[in-house]
Amino acid sequence: MFRTHTCGELRIENIGQQITLAGWVQTIRKFGAITFIDLRDRYGITQLLFGEELNKQLEENPLGREYVLQVNGIVNERSNKNKNIPTGDIEITVSSFTILNKSEVPPFTIQDDTDGGDDLRMKFRYLDLRRNAVKRNIELRYAVNRSARNYLHENNFIDIETPFLIKSTPEGARDFVVPSRMNEGEFYALPQSPQTFKQLLMVSGYDRYFQIVKCFRDEDLRADRQPEFTQIDCEMSFVEQEDILNMFEGLVKRIFKDVKGINYSDAVERITWEEAMWQYGNDKPDTRFGMKICNLVFDKNMFPSKENFFDAEMFDIPPFGGKGASVLAIAVPNCSEYTRKQIDELTEWVKRPQVGMKGLVFIKCNTDGTFKSSIDKFYTPEQLKAIAEAANTKAGDLILILAGAEERTRKAISELRLEMGKRLGLRNENEFKLLWVLDFPLFEYAEEENRWVARHHPFTSPKPSDIDTMINNSPVIENAAEYLKHPYANIKANAYDMVLNGNEIGGGSIRIYQKALQQKMFEALGMNEEEQQHKFGFLLGAFEYGAPPHGGIAFGFDRLCAILGGSESIRDFIAFPKNNSGRDVMLDAPSSIDEKQLNELQIKLDLK
Amino acid sequence: MFRTHTCGELRIENIGQQITLAGWVQTIRKFGAITFIDLRDRYGITQLLFGEELNKQLEENPLGREYVLQVNGIVNERSNKNKNIPTGDIEITVSSFTILNKSEVPPFTIQDDTDGGDDLRMKFRYLDLRRNAVKRNIELRYAVNRSARNYLHENNFIDIETPFLIKSTPEGARDFVVPSRMNEGEFYALPQSPQTFKQLLMVSGYDRYFQIVKCFRDEDLRADRQPEFTQIDCEMSFVEQEDILNMFEGLVKRIFKDVKGINYSDAVERITWEEAMWQYGNDKPDTRFGMKICNLVFDKNMFPSKENFFDAEMFDIPPFGGKGASVLAIAVPNCSEYTRKQIDELTEWVKRPQVGMKGLVFIKCNTDGTFKSSIDKFYTPEQLKAIAEAANTKAGDLILILAGAEERTRKAISELRLEMGKRLGLRNENEFKLLWVLDFPLFEYAEEENRWVARHHPFTSPKPSDIDTMINNSPVIENAAEYLKHPYANIKANAYDMVLNGNEIGGGSIRIYQKALQQKMFEALGMNEEEQQHKFGFLLGAFEYGAPPHGGIAFGFDRLCAILGGSESIRDFIAFPKNNSGRDVMLDAPSSIDEKQLNELQIKLDLK
Repeated sequence: MFRTHTCGELRIENIGQQITLAGWVQTIRKFGAITFIDLRDRYGITQLLFGEELNKQLEENPLGREYVLQVNGIVNERSNKNKNIPTGDIEITVSSFTILNKSEVPPFTIQDDTDGGDDLRMKFRYLDLRRNAVKRNIELRYAVNRSARNYLHENNFIDIETPFLIKSTPEGARDFVVPSRMNEGEFYALPQSPQTFKQLLMVSGYDRYFQIVKCFRDEDLRADRQPEFTQIDCEMSFVEQEDILNMFEGLVKRIFKDVKGINYSDAVERITWEEAMWQYGNDKPDTRFGMKICNLVFDKNMFPSKENFFDAEMFDIPPFGGKGASVLAIAVPNCSEYTRKQIDELTEWVKRPQVGMKGLVFIKCNTDGTFKSSIDKFYTPEQLKAIAEAANTKAGDLILILAGAEERTRKAISELRLEMGKRLGLRNENEFKLLWVLDFPLFEYAEEENRWVARHHPFTSPKPSDIDTMINNSPVIENAAEYLKHPYANIKANAYDMVLNGNEIGGGSIRIYQKALQQKMFEALGMNEEEQQHKFGFLLGAFEYGAPPHGGIAFGFDRLCAILGGSESIRDFIAFPKNNSGRDVMLDAPSSIDEKQLNELQIKLDLK
Repeated sequence: MFRTHTCGELRIENIGQQITLAGWVQTIRKFGAITFIDLRDRYGITQLLFGEELNKQLEENPLGREYVLQVNGIVNERSNKNKNIPTGDIEITVSSFTILNKSEVPPFTIQDDTDGGDDLRMKFRYLDLRRNAVKRNIELRYAVNRSARNYLHENNFIDIETPFLIKSTPEGARDFVVPSRMNEGEFYALPQSPQTFKQLLMVSGYDRYFQIVKCFRDEDLRADRQPEFTQIDCEMSFVEQEDILNMFEGLVKRIFKDVKGINYSDAVERITWEEAMWQYGNDKPDTRFGMKICNLVFDKNMFPSKENFFDAEMFDIPPFGGKGASVLAIAVPNCSEYTRKQIDELTEWVKRPQVGMKGLVFIKCNTDGTFKSSIDKFYTPEQLKAIAEAANTKAGDLILILAGAEERTRKAISELRLEMGKRLGLRNENEFKLLWVLDFPLFEYAEEENRWVARHHPFTSPKPSDIDTMINNSPVIENAAEYLKHPYANIKANAYDMVLNGNEIGGGSIRIYQKALQQKMFEALGMNEEEQQHKFGFLLGAFEYGAPPHGGIAFGFDRLCAILGGSESIRDFIAFPKNNSGRDVMLDAPSSIDEKQLNELQIKLDLK
């Protein structure tokens, strides 16, 4: 061992001990004939004192930042204590030292506030990983991993590894494929998730399975997507939705406790998908704050069970873009005194292409009970008051109203709500709010192909009350314009998402376990019998031999870690991430391969 | 929840309780008007009693093997107790039942002694996994995983995930490659191990890393090799070989304790590679028994430090194949009374192509002090006695002698030793004997290319005393016939293998951490500077910025589990293994993929 202690270990109790440390030179400070060096390792920083004698040796063997140094010395009390670090009471009076390795001057400073840009830090990721800010993330990731494993172990889950070289069954996302040399002309695929394997394990009777496992999707990368990502993947047998919700809110609460020291004792709120869309305009609402949507006028097709507050005619004026538009509002608390400039800036914000609205209507609910709005000339004060009441405002609020086609407007008001929440400081990264979103639609309509696609995946079961609807109706959509009237449009799934601070951190479902229903599902997704057999014959086969009722969930591990770490970027929580083109710039991968390799695989390039 | 208890849970204390169970029908036994059913789940088996009333319902809804059944009932004491199962004291008097799912008759019986052949069981792996014999293995695998994680966690190791989509740097084994759609004409590779990443993590200061991780090698599969396999992969900084040996024999001992209840308190024996070859004829000797090799005559080039017992001339007789042959013996204890037939059978055994010897010479050391041998006519009794003494025999032993070219003969005598150990019952699968093999050669000679290849991998450091030899000599081999005289032939590596019962379960080394030495190593392996930069530029770069001394080890997780489970086959310990052609016969993977997928990847088939 090159050391007797770590650089984070020595305390006042160790004074007088002869010790050996090894680590990296963080800083060098010369004071006349003596030198102070901060030595850093994974565990902390310890101050080294090089007296006059050794200083001469240092001059002959000059050190630099990031040199790897081993020192022998004695622990002494510091005259000038540093309260900011655990080793701040002591320093090492060095008696001898060895330079274990030299270092070039790093291309950026190894500090929390580094001067290195993103590209440079990625190219030298091994140096970036030395920074405390990054190390904390990697350590947090391990703490989450460990906490999840402990909880699942205590609850009788068993970690079972599923294969990485599997069969390509593209459905939704694209597979990464791997040419097989030994089976020429054939390919493996890398798993998008272990979904079918964990279901087979339930058929095999393993009852409670988990895995913290890499998954792969060859999608066009958006910011903060990775071609390989990690899931906490779980499945249980003989359970109903309620059992899953309880088990896995327990998991997340345990992680809060172990990793953040937070006692999340509240019951996790639950909301249906429909209510989430109605109240928040999206299916992963941030419930750290209210500011719910006021549905002044909306498309009844989307929310058949809801009633309009007002006749559509009331909003048939130019600022709302004419009749037939949805008119959605939020009441921003205590902002009635926004200036013209502030309102103008918000108007520009909603008109940005990312939001895509034509304009913004406002009503200031003044503290004196009067109203001031951008639509004063169209409405009487009584009408404005009626809108304000519908929007559940109180004096001092600012009502912001967007109008237009239902889907786009709902999305926009949702984004405006989040933006206002952020501006008002209502989205505190140290506050954690969980939410279950339930009762998703089973199907989504795919316009281009005029058919149904699975909203979650093809193994999700419909609500028991909807099974007959599914079995007894043809999935064919005769009239594309009226797809919302097809019986399949209203089938709800036994599916659930867990949302944390407005991010989907996990999702799952109770699965189909009956062969006939699974076949009906495949058929609904436009898969003929031959295709079903080719892609999922093994699963349909397994369902013939006593498949138990089962369900599960998968958590996005990278995302969960990022949120717990108070970051928006998952890349910060991955040791060796890829950039937005799927490249590892440190390795310079992917790269071309030898002709010999291509020959052995019996493939060739076919560049367009 | 479909149950209140599991099928392994109920005991005499539960008598009188109203319970609900769910599981699979293992057996159905009718006795007149009543029926007994054994219900099985992951946790055990519970006997169900269907009385007369329910029997009628059973007749209307007949059950079969592997049906999924839910029952309500009361726990009662059994009149006829079954001592073989933990639930054997009780049975459930069923009050109502629900068939949760039906089952076809399985293609083989779900029992320890199944009637299913290998192919059938692999095709229906989800049924095979139900068998207790397989379930035990999967559970043992998880227990090993859990034990290793706990030990490593307690010793400050941190699990850090390394990427799966990396750069192809074929060196030794072939990479599996993954065409990149977003970077046309380029490929990722799947990692053969996280070797360079864990070294980078040491450069980054993470100090103690581990991962239980899938690795991939596209090799021609021998029996019991898998294209994807799992390693317990570890690395430590600021350590010397001794630290690694201590830490990781601790790991294996902990696994013995947690998984097998074995207190392995002995120090782990150590042997150099040279002594292992000398004494056992291979580098992973089974030390559960002695029967060491007697090196009567051998090739001095292979063991320069050893002396021959006899002049080669002594064995220059036809049974030994003439002068210049190595003559190697083992003394098989207490077998001097082997019959002619037994000796003939052994002779046939060594002549099999897998062993490849021309014949077998024997000397019986009779209990009366006389000798009887197949070479009586060539030697005096005194000469036989001299051989017997050299071979360290005692009266009653049987000396078996093989002769021929050094390498082949040593391999053959090693196999003969293992075979005799097995026949004599000296290789008990419940006895566990660990061994460290140390001081491997750094290089191996590649005859076809007349150059050096890395015996372990190119990151293994030479022994400190051999560094100068390596730096100061050219790797070029001028005279291929005399490669053993090249200075590189004697360079020893800072490498170690852990051997358990004759199987290599782990291997590692202290790594090179100096850029110049790493470059010299690459050069020795025939890699020019451009190639070095292209393949390993990131590592050479990392070594410029303060790389610490470090080393590590990787355990073959599948193999370790198999040995602990008393099996020779790793496939039995993998949930979804591939067959010897790398196929998953359950999934029918690999398979052809759509033309559309090939187009998107800009590759095409090029079948020969």
